Amino acid sequence: MTSSTSTSRADPERIAVWVSRLRSGDARALARAISAVEDRRPEAAGLLRALFPYTGRAAVVGLTGAPGAGKSTLVDQLAREYRSAGQTVGIVAVDPTSPYSGGAILGDRIRMLSHHADPGIYIRSMATRGALGGLAQTTPDVVTVLDGSGRDLILIETVGVGQDEIDVVRLADVTIVILVPGMGDDVQTIKAGIMEIADIFVINKSDREGAERVEREIRAMQSISPRRDSWSPPIVRAIATSGDGIGDLAAAISEYRKFLGTTELGRQKRIESWRERLVAMLRESLVRRILQTELREADLTRYAEQIADHQLDPYTVVDGIIKKSGY
Amino acid sequence: MTSSTSTSRADPERIAVWVSRLRSGDARALARAISAVEDRRPEAAGLLRALFPYTGRAAVVGLTGAPGAGKSTLVDQLAREYRSAGQTVGIVAVDPTSPYSGGAILGDRIRMLSHHADPGIYIRSMATRGALGGLAQTTPDVVTVLDGSGRDLILIETVGVGQDEIDVVRLADVTIVILVPGMGDDVQTIKAGIMEIADIFVINKSDREGAERVEREIRAMQSISPRRDSWSPPIVRAIATSGDGIGDLAAAISEYRKFLGTTELGRQKRIESWRERLVAMLRESLVRRILQTELREADLTRYAEQIADHQLDPYTVVDGIIKKSGY
Repeated sequence: MTSSTSTSRADPERIAVWVSRLRSGDARALARAISAVEDRRPEAAGLLRALFPYTGRAAVVGLTGAPGAGKSTLVDQLAREYRSAGQTVGIVAVDPTSPYSGGAILGDRIRMLSHHADPGIYIRSMATRGALGGLAQTTPDVVTVLDGSGRDLILIETVGVGQDEIDVVRLADVTIVILVPGMGDDVQTIKAGIMEIADIFVINKSDREGAERVEREIRAMQSISPRRDSWSPPIVRAIATSGDGIGDLAAAISEYRKFLGTTELGRQKRIESWRERLVAMLRESLVRRILQTELREADLTRYAEQIADHQLDPYTVVDGIIKKSGY
Repeated sequence: MTSSTSTSRADPERIAVWVSRLRSGDARALARAISAVEDRRPEAAGLLRALFPYTGRAAVVGLTGAPGAGKSTLVDQLAREYRSAGQTVGIVAVDPTSPYSGGAILGDRIRMLSHHADPGIYIRSMATRGALGGLAQTTPDVVTVLDGSGRDLILIETVGVGQDEIDVVRLADVTIVILVPGMGDDVQTIKAGIMEIADIFVINKSDREGAERVEREIRAMQSISPRRDSWSPPIVRAIATSGDGIGDLAAAISEYRKFLGTTELGRQKRIESWRERLVAMLRESLVRRILQTELREADLTRYAEQIADHQLDPYTVVDGIIKKSGY
């Protein structure tokens, strides 16, 4: 996020009211807060700062898998499971593969309906593109808002293919990788890429032929690249559409969280995550300052033109801008 | 890239020799140059600067598609086609889905063998993760090296799913989206996400059932979101394994490049691409300076610990570092 601006500094009272509404579970205040963060509005910095003291309490669970693995259904069932135990749930659905189709917003509405407008479940799809910093920058702030607003459980779901999505899922305390039988050899590559970050595996649609084979493959890959800690990622079989195995999954999540608590690994994970996030925040903050002060849009276009026409080289341009900025 | 460092400034002669070797087609010099850029070594900045005047001549073609669409085979066949016309080819294979498996390096060797070690085809797989800036930052520099070293054609292949991969493919003058029949409805979402960036569509494995359906779907999507320019992206049917349709694809590429040349659109695309790249370069350069001077690794870890333990909030930390940096 940007640093505090005059807007946010000047209006601490408005921020305080907003925070208290968020803390009381006001769904409209929550929607507005997430939009402010997504759109990088000036008031977002002050809000995030004010919410920070309330964060760190939620369980953050990331779920990832190839398109077609049944992520949404599994996440919805998991949300239902936790709701029936009295927990409040926030769902962040990150799917950068369908931004042009408007599917994200439509999908939200359909999924909201399936929860009968239960205010204890809040779903937000993120499909913003081209924003400064991208999804990997915005998602942590959205999680901060949900966490600070008092949600007990935050589920982040994403397709496990690109680097951004993997960064997003690494925010979580618990990472779940969802596989399905019968997706062919090409999908094995995807699995290999996210193997190391899985704390729990789910074989979804496990009534399909080939579930044993998927399990054998997971075990084989685990033996090739074992984890550094003593946790052995369990494999949970599930059929998300019928709810089979959802209880087992919740139990596995609970067990891993217990493991994190007893081994100090949870704190280590959060420190590592903050290291990366601090660098990302610095990067964004600095470039935003330069773009707001030293380098106007018109200058940027003029430089780009001269580089495209080979009148300037980009390395000299960047050096020049930084020198001019006085840094 | 970083700005020129003492190493690169101090050794202009070494850089000049390196550039002349690159320009003469020396494959070892090329491999070393790409590694230097990938690893962000100090000499990379000077090398890129020295190569820049020779760039802008290569045709840069990006190819993207879901895992299993047959990208590698298609790219290999296309490379063969251009080789038989006497052109030199550089292939950059970006696949962030398989970095842990070591598949990238093995894949390079297998693919190199299939070209019988023809020095006119150079293949480099990029699967680096966690590097400052990531793939979307490194790939443009690798393309600069290949371009500056005199390759006529540069093919960038990537899975078209994540934001990073889409950024990578947008570097290209010509963007090709590869689809295959019978990949089911889930894959349609992927298609929707990259529909707008396609200059040419390929229906690969077009002897499979369902090729007509894929073509109808492309046409339907095109009618929903038409392009702003007057180009109507052609649909080429191909069977990469047998080489069917590869000639048609090369013809379509050539036709689109002609269109770019006559409409000034090519220059516009390059300007747009440089605008984004300049901002990315600035971002990386600034954060690198701060990490090298104001903020040591130990400080970063200490801040991360205090944030994880809720003794500090990250927004105040970032403001403080920037203020301290004197910017």
